[in-house]
Amino acid sequence: MSKRFSLESIVSLAKRRGFVYQGSEIYGGLAGTWDYGPLGVQLKRNLADLWWKMFVEGRDDMFGLDSAILMNPKVWQASGHIATFSDPLVECQTCHGRFRADKIDSSKCPSCGSKNSFGQPRQFNMMFKTQVGPVANQESVSYLRPETAQGMFVNFKNVVDSFSPNLPFGIAQIGRAFRNEISPRDFLFRAREFEIMELEYFVRPDDWQEPFNDWRKLLGQWFAAIGLPAGRIKEVELPSNERAHYSQATVDFYYDYPSIGLDELAGLAYRGAFDLTNHQRLSGKKLEYRPKEGGKPFVPHVIEPTFGLDRNVMAVLSEAYCEDSVGGEKRVLLKLPSDLAPVRYAVSPLLKNKPELVEKARAVYRLLKERFGLVMWDDNGNIGKRYRRQDEIGTPYCVVVDFQSLQDGTVTVRDRDTTKQQRLAPEAIGQSESTH
Amino acid sequence: MSKRFSLESIVSLAKRRGFVYQGSEIYGGLAGTWDYGPLGVQLKRNLADLWWKMFVEGRDDMFGLDSAILMNPKVWQASGHIATFSDPLVECQTCHGRFRADKIDSSKCPSCGSKNSFGQPRQFNMMFKTQVGPVANQESVSYLRPETAQGMFVNFKNVVDSFSPNLPFGIAQIGRAFRNEISPRDFLFRAREFEIMELEYFVRPDDWQEPFNDWRKLLGQWFAAIGLPAGRIKEVELPSNERAHYSQATVDFYYDYPSIGLDELAGLAYRGAFDLTNHQRLSGKKLEYRPKEGGKPFVPHVIEPTFGLDRNVMAVLSEAYCEDSVGGEKRVLLKLPSDLAPVRYAVSPLLKNKPELVEKARAVYRLLKERFGLVMWDDNGNIGKRYRRQDEIGTPYCVVVDFQSLQDGTVTVRDRDTTKQQRLAPEAIGQSESTH
Repeated sequence: MSKRFSLESIVSLAKRRGFVYQGSEIYGGLAGTWDYGPLGVQLKRNLADLWWKMFVEGRDDMFGLDSAILMNPKVWQASGHIATFSDPLVECQTCHGRFRADKIDSSKCPSCGSKNSFGQPRQFNMMFKTQVGPVANQESVSYLRPETAQGMFVNFKNVVDSFSPNLPFGIAQIGRAFRNEISPRDFLFRAREFEIMELEYFVRPDDWQEPFNDWRKLLGQWFAAIGLPAGRIKEVELPSNERAHYSQATVDFYYDYPSIGLDELAGLAYRGAFDLTNHQRLSGKKLEYRPKEGGKPFVPHVIEPTFGLDRNVMAVLSEAYCEDSVGGEKRVLLKLPSDLAPVRYAVSPLLKNKPELVEKARAVYRLLKERFGLVMWDDNGNIGKRYRRQDEIGTPYCVVVDFQSLQDGTVTVRDRDTTKQQRLAPEAIGQSESTH
Repeated sequence: MSKRFSLESIVSLAKRRGFVYQGSEIYGGLAGTWDYGPLGVQLKRNLADLWWKMFVEGRDDMFGLDSAILMNPKVWQASGHIATFSDPLVECQTCHGRFRADKIDSSKCPSCGSKNSFGQPRQFNMMFKTQVGPVANQESVSYLRPETAQGMFVNFKNVVDSFSPNLPFGIAQIGRAFRNEISPRDFLFRAREFEIMELEYFVRPDDWQEPFNDWRKLLGQWFAAIGLPAGRIKEVELPSNERAHYSQATVDFYYDYPSIGLDELAGLAYRGAFDLTNHQRLSGKKLEYRPKEGGKPFVPHVIEPTFGLDRNVMAVLSEAYCEDSVGGEKRVLLKLPSDLAPVRYAVSPLLKNKPELVEKARAVYRLLKERFGLVMWDDNGNIGKRYRRQDEIGTPYCVVVDFQSLQDGTVTVRDRDTTKQQRLAPEAIGQSESTH
């Protein structure tokens, strides 16, 4: 596995080169929020599209969904979030700073230094509250969803009514969720606003073990597909006393983040019939599966693979970031897998003051842009500087039009990782160069 | 132009076939929220991807963004939303129902029937309010963004610092926004949670008219690309007394929605330097462009094309929906453009109880799925029923494996709109059939 660098150097690159900026930065930020810049949004889209292709479009048993962030508050009553989605909070009686009781040494306030200034911990609900409609009262209270899963459960009946699927089948969505974390931290790792890629896979109650094992393998395949080596992933099976009471099996997938160490990246939980049963009870609607071969209708059980999209972005950036030395000079590069890189090809003329080189390079640029979309024109500075700049944002190939191009039509295609060049006809690009 | 059908029949189809469901439906809904089902989410993705390709990836002058929904509240102070983003609200003194003063006849309460029961209208701010962080006080108040535009303005400096672009250039994003509408109405048209595709195009102050005209044409090209005929779009130039005070030119693009009539679909506004100037003043950060050829830095002006994504979905569905008669029976079909259809090909064996037909059909299905992604297996009911079912969700082509397929390898490819069939080798599908 590659050498590790500090999280700080990755955050710094992310900001400098337009991957991820602090949210509302010109106003000093808003803690726990992040804005994806031009390269970050493309990296995130590439990741999310790959996930959607692998787990929704590419399968026969999956139904996509995009449910609203604002939901009827009864959803959160049924799910248990109103009652129990909270962290223990303590307040310093001197400075009124508030902290997570389980994360600090409570003998001395970390903010003002007062000793033994904390009262009893109280439970702080992490759902963001708002009010929907023109009347502000108890009945208009609603919440920003703290997870996407309930959107799938609440639409179980809709999907069954519209599509009559056979078990097992899944409902999947990618979307925002919000948690009012007491202490957001570590870049994208624990933010107050984040994105989840998740699916609920419905199975027969007596047939959960095999699909659970299959999904466990599929999660491993996903990490391999996005370039995370198995040696940096740790699967942790939660013992029964650490699982949610409704879960008969849970595996957490930890990634070895730089500067943080092993922490959550994705999860796989067998949730039984907990969610559908609660929604059925509270809504009065039957949330059952009716076997087509006959037999009694029943509430299916569910297996839930969950992927933190921002954490996946962070892991991919962490894995790709490296520093080496080229021609005696330090270079920073992102060894991103080709299909995740926000820019696939950078195109430039060897010299920008030679019109015939520029004209030919523009033609090559248009050709590649038409075919690959994510192609950047970059003629700033000398060729060495351009290579460094593209290495730093993970562009797998730099294409340069030089004087030989004017004679035989070929261009140089330079490989990010090896820095080696080969000459190719522009039409052959994308077929014959080595792949990352 | 095609005949119109009622909005009700479109909403009914959308629910029945899994395009759009009422949000939180099993709990009686949450007014103004909608959930996209399996077909709707794919239609919306196809639309959004086309927009992104056309206006971001496909251009040299555009920078993508994905900013947070929760922003520092100073953003909404600078933008004017805290002071003025409100509707006039009246309350019935008898039943305490609340209504938009400008949308009702105020002599009689539409809810309880009381006469002259309304007090004076007051201004109701349409931003959803919440509190960020563990301390709930005036300083922790924040809002769900009521528009995506401010994300681009707040990141103007970041993009300039990371990419040093030349003017003109744009920043674009697709994302959720939230407005606490007093009276959400008309399906996706006026919802409380919705999605916007938007870009801010920065120009020199003395050079806005030409790019403004270019964008006006580009909006027309967009509508053509998604199958909305020019005859159903009306461009309305707002006179100066109806424009926002900072806007020197605004064109609204109306679409002729079924049952609603002409109403907003997209907009194009020249906003001058209003936003950047306000953010510069309030943040104390320079939001200027420094000409590379020398000369004084200045605050660029901005042209803003805005597209309501849900409204675009609704217009596309409205335009595509039609009813005709085939073989003496009424059929409902969605004449969706091929590149927007959630299912491109449906594949089935002529008879599902003939293993050799099923086996061959599965092979054809896998081939097409590999190549086109959006391919559905549909062997339910007789062939006529399958065609009707696929017509109703807009599938351009149904592919059937029959007995001749076993002999010569060809399959039938049936066209949604003409109902005509042709025989093709499976490998030739996608190349030679007529296109929609």
